[in-house]
Amino acid sequence: MNDPEASNECIVLARVPGETLEPADFELRGEQLALTDPGGDVTVAASTFGLNAGLRTRLGTGHSTTLGPAIDPGDTPRSDAIGTVTASDRPDIQVGDLVTGLLPWARVSTVDGGGLRVLSPDADPLRHLTILGHVGKTAHTALMTVGRLRAGETVWIPAAAGGVGSCAVQIALRAGAHVIASAGSPAKLDHLRDTLGVADVFDRHEDLAQALERHAPDGLDVYLDLVGGDSLRTGLEMLREHGRAVVAGLAGAAPTRPILQDSAELISRRISMIGMSVTDYPHAQSDLEAFVEHHEERRPFVASATTHHGLAEMPRAFCALFSSEVIGRGVVDLRNEPGPATPGPRS
Amino acid sequence: MNDPEASNECIVLARVPGETLEPADFELRGEQLALTDPGGDVTVAASTFGLNAGLRTRLGTGHSTTLGPAIDPGDTPRSDAIGTVTASDRPDIQVGDLVTGLLPWARVSTVDGGGLRVLSPDADPLRHLTILGHVGKTAHTALMTVGRLRAGETVWIPAAAGGVGSCAVQIALRAGAHVIASAGSPAKLDHLRDTLGVADVFDRHEDLAQALERHAPDGLDVYLDLVGGDSLRTGLEMLREHGRAVVAGLAGAAPTRPILQDSAELISRRISMIGMSVTDYPHAQSDLEAFVEHHEERRPFVASATTHHGLAEMPRAFCALFSSEVIGRGVVDLRNEPGPATPGPRS
Repeated sequence: MNDPEASNECIVLARVPGETLEPADFELRGEQLALTDPGGDVTVAASTFGLNAGLRTRLGTGHSTTLGPAIDPGDTPRSDAIGTVTASDRPDIQVGDLVTGLLPWARVSTVDGGGLRVLSPDADPLRHLTILGHVGKTAHTALMTVGRLRAGETVWIPAAAGGVGSCAVQIALRAGAHVIASAGSPAKLDHLRDTLGVADVFDRHEDLAQALERHAPDGLDVYLDLVGGDSLRTGLEMLREHGRAVVAGLAGAAPTRPILQDSAELISRRISMIGMSVTDYPHAQSDLEAFVEHHEERRPFVASATTHHGLAEMPRAFCALFSSEVIGRGVVDLRNEPGPATPGPRS
Repeated sequence: MNDPEASNECIVLARVPGETLEPADFELRGEQLALTDPGGDVTVAASTFGLNAGLRTRLGTGHSTTLGPAIDPGDTPRSDAIGTVTASDRPDIQVGDLVTGLLPWARVSTVDGGGLRVLSPDADPLRHLTILGHVGKTAHTALMTVGRLRAGETVWIPAAAGGVGSCAVQIALRAGAHVIASAGSPAKLDHLRDTLGVADVFDRHEDLAQALERHAPDGLDVYLDLVGGDSLRTGLEMLREHGRAVVAGLAGAAPTRPILQDSAELISRRISMIGMSVTDYPHAQSDLEAFVEHHEERRPFVASATTHHGLAEMPRAFCALFSSEVIGRGVVDLRNEPGPATPGPRS
């Protein structure tokens, strides 16, 4: 094995992004030493990263959010990742272990091993960055624990071809729900229909209320909010009695527009609207794994992702999340040479 | 006993009310026969009524709500009441039983006995129309079941000197919460402080955010929304992480103004906002009674009410709910001759 510290590289935020995020807002830097957190006790050589659009809300704003600390110019963002341990001061993590957790956008870094989880040596990285990863965990907790989605109920999932959305539609279908999914391009709608098996799909550029009335004439039981703004407003309007709006993400990542909310409406339909972060649910990972294991044999899950190759491609891969070209989770694979993105359900 | 049907009287809505409700919007009518519901099987001579401001939203609007059917001109409103059974076709309800349930504003009526509950012969009507009645049940369910209020947590209760509010502050104090109560007159604030034992009170005409920052510098865990509009907006703004806004009433009864709600805020503080109606909770009455019994001996509950006397006073008593003169629940006692209202914690 090469000495990873000698050839370490990382991505930093180069400047405060403008309204539209650009790859040039980031910079690839060579570093002499591995990135080291204070108290870091496990060194990991990263192999694969899974990106989240929500990170955008912390780039250059100076504001930390519930999703993590502010990322200012000079800082290295972090994302879910999978890597191999090259050094460890922890008894429960060994050199050579395959681990997953939040890692800096770098080839090598030394982090708090308490945040890492050891995977089996033959684990499929793509599966662990999609249906078994943070996005799958968010989707499962939002729908099943917070939203209490039951068989026969109707759920609308916007941004359904995205990282969380593509897990959510698969989970909701297996839970026996009537799933309505929307997305922003014909390729995404095809993916939802043909690859993920959602019968009721519509283009998000349609009039949302009209589309929902067509697909869910009796209203919604659950609305999984991943975008805010107009979708949230329409989702709430379409909830039937005892409907639940689970507010779990900001896929648009631009500041959402506030919506008007009337308390008489909340009471008369007994609607709830619940903001959540999966970090609050200590059993989320094991609950997700039990669900996936239970359903996997009868109807296997698809690891829905678009993979870019090489650390240098990370800024472009991240910016692509805000175009309509990424289907499934945006993933960056460091194990191959840099190259063009491979769109599709699996890399 | 006189023949109650011979002298029956009821109150009907006389006209569609204008912006300000007036006693002249109602009319006292003599009826030859008792008011009889289709399928009614128990005849009750009413003795005491407990009024709710929420009824206002159904008067002359042509719109039924979750709280009950529309009340158009010529219709007789219904409220919680206590009365004595004068005839019964049901095996579980006997002539002479003291019962409570929703009754028309009339001396005598024949209703579905399935909606009635038999009380012990020596039951205190005022207690059963306040802390043990619909308002107590709403307050207990909203705070404890839906709001999951725990000892040590901070709750703000607006309209705290009203029917639901005066029960809610007593329940929250006994649950060990830090209670902040607001109301609209010095007499109401005195009542909250001196009679109900709330240390932290403020006038609702104050700047709400400033008052709350003074009384709850660390924010709120629970906000019991009984009014909507500005209070709801401020309550949500003041919720700390994992705070719950329980939307349970419309004390103002005028249409509430919608508020702006931002999904990023809901997520970052993991706030929930839950519209509820106590009618959805089949165990609400027994849960309430267990709570009251558990706490009664150590710290007795106050039946907080303002009592008017005589059926003819019903319209005036109802309109008074929208002034600032009624402390506790507005109650009308039919057992005495008409007379002026008796304000205060107990009639």
